[in-house]
Amino acid sequence: MTETMRAVVFENFKTFPSLKDVEKPTPGPGEVLLKVAGAGACHSDVAIFEDFDENNPAGLKPEFTLGHENSGWVEEVGEGVTGFEKGDAYLVYGPIGCGRCKACSRGQDTYCENAATNPYLATGLGRDGGMAEYMTVPARNLVPLGEADPINAAPLSDAALTPYHAIKLSLGHLDGGGKFALVIGLGGLGLIAVQILKALTGATIIATDMKEEAMAEAEKLGAITVPGGEDQVAKIREITGGRGVDAAFDFVGVTPTIGAAMGAMAMQGRLTVVGIAGQPHSWSFYTAPYEVELTSTYWGTIEELHEVAQMYRNGQIVPQVTRYTMDQALEAYQALVDGKISGRAVVVPHS
Amino acid sequence: MTETMRAVVFENFKTFPSLKDVEKPTPGPGEVLLKVAGAGACHSDVAIFEDFDENNPAGLKPEFTLGHENSGWVEEVGEGVTGFEKGDAYLVYGPIGCGRCKACSRGQDTYCENAATNPYLATGLGRDGGMAEYMTVPARNLVPLGEADPINAAPLSDAALTPYHAIKLSLGHLDGGGKFALVIGLGGLGLIAVQILKALTGATIIATDMKEEAMAEAEKLGAITVPGGEDQVAKIREITGGRGVDAAFDFVGVTPTIGAAMGAMAMQGRLTVVGIAGQPHSWSFYTAPYEVELTSTYWGTIEELHEVAQMYRNGQIVPQVTRYTMDQALEAYQALVDGKISGRAVVVPHS
Amino acid sequence: MTETMRAVVFENFKTFPSLKDVEKPTPGPGEVLLKVAGAGACHSDVAIFEDFDENNPAGLKPEFTLGHENSGWVEEVGEGVTGFEKGDAYLVYGPIGCGRCKACSRGQDTYCENAATNPYLATGLGRDGGMAEYMTVPARNLVPLGEADPINAAPLSDAALTPYHAIKLSLGHLDGGGKFALVIGLGGLGLIAVQILKALTGATIIATDMKEEAMAEAEKLGAITVPGGEDQVAKIREITGGRGVDAAFDFVGVTPTIGAAMGAMAMQGRLTVVGIAGQPHSWSFYTAPYEVELTSTYWGTIEELHEVAQMYRNGQIVPQVTRYTMDQALEAYQALVDGKISGRAVVVPHS
Amino acid sequence: MTETMRAVVFENFKTFPSLKDVEKPTPGPGEVLLKVAGAGACHSDVAIFEDFDENNPAGLKPEFTLGHENSGWVEEVGEGVTGFEKGDAYLVYGPIGCGRCKACSRGQDTYCENAATNPYLATGLGRDGGMAEYMTVPARNLVPLGEADPINAAPLSDAALTPYHAIKLSLGHLDGGGKFALVIGLGGLGLIAVQILKALTGATIIATDMKEEAMAEAEKLGAITVPGGEDQVAKIREITGGRGVDAAFDFVGVTPTIGAAMGAMAMQGRLTVVGIAGQPHSWSFYTAPYEVELTSTYWGTIEELHEVAQMYRNGQIVPQVTRYTMDQALEAYQALVDGKISGRAVVVPHS
Repeated sequence: MTETMRAVVFENFKTFPSLKDVEKPTPGPGEVLLKVAGAGACHSDVAIFEDFDENNPAGLKPEFTLGHENSGWVEEVGEGVTGFEKGDAYLVYGPIGCGRCKACSRGQDTYCENAATNPYLATGLGRDGGMAEYMTVPARNLVPLGEADPINAAPLSDAALTPYHAIKLSLGHLDGGGKFALVIGLGGLGLIAVQILKALTGATIIATDMKEEAMAEAEKLGAITVPGGEDQVAKIREITGGRGVDAAFDFVGVTPTIGAAMGAMAMQGRLTVVGIAGQPHSWSFYTAPYEVELTSTYWGTIEELHEVAQMYRNGQIVPQVTRYTMDQALEAYQALVDGKISGRAVVVPHS
Repeated sequence: MTETMRAVVFENFKTFPSLKDVEKPTPGPGEVLLKVAGAGACHSDVAIFEDFDENNPAGLKPEFTLGHENSGWVEEVGEGVTGFEKGDAYLVYGPIGCGRCKACSRGQDTYCENAATNPYLATGLGRDGGMAEYMTVPARNLVPLGEADPINAAPLSDAALTPYHAIKLSLGHLDGGGKFALVIGLGGLGLIAVQILKALTGATIIATDMKEEAMAEAEKLGAITVPGGEDQVAKIREITGGRGVDAAFDFVGVTPTIGAAMGAMAMQGRLTVVGIAGQPHSWSFYTAPYEVELTSTYWGTIEELHEVAQMYRNGQIVPQVTRYTMDQALEAYQALVDGKISGRAVVVPHS
Repeated sequence: MTETMRAVVFENFKTFPSLKDVEKPTPGPGEVLLKVAGAGACHSDVAIFEDFDENNPAGLKPEFTLGHENSGWVEEVGEGVTGFEKGDAYLVYGPIGCGRCKACSRGQDTYCENAATNPYLATGLGRDGGMAEYMTVPARNLVPLGEADPINAAPLSDAALTPYHAIKLSLGHLDGGGKFALVIGLGGLGLIAVQILKALTGATIIATDMKEEAMAEAEKLGAITVPGGEDQVAKIREITGGRGVDAAFDFVGVTPTIGAAMGAMAMQGRLTVVGIAGQPHSWSFYTAPYEVELTSTYWGTIEELHEVAQMYRNGQIVPQVTRYTMDQALEAYQALVDGKISGRAVVVPHS
Repeated sequence: MTETMRAVVFENFKTFPSLKDVEKPTPGPGEVLLKVAGAGACHSDVAIFEDFDENNPAGLKPEFTLGHENSGWVEEVGEGVTGFEKGDAYLVYGPIGCGRCKACSRGQDTYCENAATNPYLATGLGRDGGMAEYMTVPARNLVPLGEADPINAAPLSDAALTPYHAIKLSLGHLDGGGKFALVIGLGGLGLIAVQILKALTGATIIATDMKEEAMAEAEKLGAITVPGGEDQVAKIREITGGRGVDAAFDFVGVTPTIGAAMGAMAMQGRLTVVGIAGQPHSWSFYTAPYEVELTSTYWGTIEELHEVAQMYRNGQIVPQVTRYTMDQALEAYQALVDGKISGRAVVVPHS
């Protein structure tokens, strides 16, 4: 007789997900069964069930359990897996590539060279995710949390790993004294970006958002804030003594935010568009300051998630979490759809 | 009684330059008087006398002697200058910043923080240049050539330094086995770029130009060439096994060339626009491969010119030079205006 | 009934290995069974059966099949393994760590954080290796060879990967024009180092060895050679114009070679001791040139082996190989013991 | 009639310096005359007048005014100098190379390629320094202080620039979460190193010294301290979870401190010996953890001094200063000889 468990399932395109009973999974060879501690509800899930159709760029096909931001306790290990103790807490690295290409060999499954033929992108993105009581995960995708609270840790696997990766690639531009960083968009990821920049660099952090509340939060975390408006770029430049910022992170990605960031850059700076709004920016040799690097970013590596977990254990990253029970899981998604979540919604299946 | 010499002088905007007698300069404190060995005629000079007016972005004001690509022999040294022997051959680093800011302190006068208040940009760009029998240069702007031919060396100070700087900043993307580099535009700079890439990296070099002759030259230098046309990007990708190129250098800078380069990039690659056509590229999160860096570049540093000179002395860079006497200097510029120069035109004042 | 195959087995410490029949292995979950194409016989194998005892630092315990430099054709795949075609040729990355730590996550099993509790170091080092007709390998440890000859490729997995890793970490010191590299010790690894340096950098390569024959070989590969002797360091410095070398690779590792390398270094250079002789070097602030980095190295990463394979496929690395049949396998080891091997001995089990 | 001023002069080897009247200097071409704000008294000055003789390695010859850690106000500018306002405060970059080599071109006069033929090393080291009422300095050696207190700034030019340079070259090892830094020796430089590490990295800082008072100070600055003793290395390793430290800075440089640092290193870490005690360390392949870089360091670059000044202006570096009047200048040196200075002694000529 198969055991069942409750899970939030993406059943069809253009359809709100269901909370229903599904078969409790069994770990295959090389896998670990996790008792889920926390499952972050993410905006990209909303895109999947509201916007996507059969021709979605990610090649996703219903149905599967949602949840790509997870933490949990080891429940059982599959064949060939050693080194895990039942009950120990781990964070889940979501992306799962082919496992045999150059990119996967360095733990960067996001850029798997065989993505086109892989059956899924990640746990919760094609493969059953962790918005459920249990989930299975390849052993190499698990990052130890030690004694730190696993529930609040759940969002780290995306909402912290994504800005961490972007920031790590920008550290060469922020190394040393007298540097400036700009963070545009102070939602879940943007506020964690401010914390990471504060911890890892000596840069003066300038932050902006349309919500005053978010700006106030960024100030508490040590940023200087500059409101939007016509003179925003001029004000940012003024703070930098005219020189501009050495690294910028745009967590929105619309034409005006990318344009504002480019206008605020110092020569030789780095501008990373993290937000996936996807609007165009008209780049030209004469309007971009010399040698500014305009780039994008996508999630991160397993090694970086180890480093994120360490920052969390050190108290350098503190995600702002609102907890929901499994019964409230669909309410969490509804709140996300309605734009009523501040910080990160985490479903706690075993509360 | 003042001595005179012949010089090619930019006398006014929208006016072809004149070859005339001017006062022979005297080296000030910290300066060296060079007997000019070679003076490269550059496309940007044509922009100055054909396109610029009082409101030019560089703030240039006539009149001044042209020539920002120079080499010469030490003739005399100014007050406080030591360590130079009369007759020794040197290459000239053209840019001259304030000399006291952070950028100038590292020999990157191109990004001088006080550019707005400096009297000129460079020798031959505001300050009297080397399209003359003699020129003065700050001692720190001189790079020794040893026994190597100084005449053919003249173009190195721009036509080699500019691609060298762009390539050096891309070496991290070309390090190691199995990498691909793309060079678009095989004029004077592009062909030297192929030589530099060949010497300094193990990358497979893919090159393209509209002129068959230029493509043939690039093949001699070790590049694989791909002609223009609708399937150009597909052909480039095919050579790379589908992955794309790790670094691209666009020596043209029009919308189609930037677009082709972006289409040919591998994820995490670097695309440097070197050519100053200034046309726009519509960048977006979903059309640029993940983490590609889109950037520009401008000339280089004194230290890099030392390295360029060393490559020339080693035979790793061989500029393709057409020599003109001082009497023919204006013919050289006319040929440039008419698009009849292949390689680099060098005026030899003391031939 | 179990199938058997022939294998070279390390049966006991201080005992020459045996060629005998053993059980043909079966691939476990996540593993691939390779039909061995080539198996390199390595000096470190000799250390194992001649010098090691129960207290060896690597914690190795007999008995196991030797062979940590391997290539082969896919014969069969274990549970959960996809993406491999029978008969396709692969190179084997030998090191096998815990698979779940930070170092393993980036494909650097050599620095596994759980090395102390792992059952073995690598294929052929604790775990059965490839000096046999067949071997099993974790799927992620396989690197595709495409159409390139798999037999001569075998030594790449150690004799090329080891210098490649050391050189890759030194590329920052060799980037650009006018640089110098020094290679001490021109055996199998040293000669491949010369090839890698030639392909990947523009540096002038200076090489030295006690055997004239090896020096002649290095010269064919493009190096300048300097014989040993009292004035060796002075001669090397002279070649560099007095400045010294920017990167040195000592494939011997005795006190005199490390001392000679340090004496030949330029300020800010990098000296990597690759050879495992283990003799001491007396470092001091005043005898080492300023900012020289003295370091060691050990094997490489999976990603780097992908890059090595690509260089081999491009013809940039050509290992010098002497082939032996399976019947001659023990002769190959005896020749190694007797110091009679030049280049690399490769056993070909299916010849 | 020449004006005079008071200065602390090194008159002869093995002889305590004198406070006497000397000629007030005049700025030459390219130089600035500074009214000295502060002059740091440094241990290396003591080495000069107590230990050095005619054969000193630095080639120093008496007599000259001491003082290589200086700040001051612009008093007058020499020929060809523009961009300075009388009364503005600047920090002095001490080293002065040939000004025309590759190293000087990047503002790293410390590694001048013509050091052997230069007349002096630095202001206060061969050339008259700033332990006087006035001093002359090449314009490019001046770094603006803005509104920040110039007197306490004086030690920055050595006691902060030296650790800053060493730390900047180690930032690649300290980038990211979960890293550890070790500081050995908590005198003037070591305590500033703790401040720089705290500001610029997210690393856990472990510090040690033989004086309890210095340890208490480091703890106030955010370091964890570990006292000396037999189990010191074990205790440091324990703090790091067994892994070891990623970067170590030894401000002493005796055999036991270098040995302790090496024993505490993580694989792939960087150990910089900053202290000039010059005692040997017996390095070997098997005793140094894999890929640890053992290196030295010497002062820094002009660009780095700009960054140090910015950190001081931001309050990220706060030198611990004891002020002396010009009348007390020799007392300051006597206190240094007697080992009675904690923090940094700064002579204030115009107090």
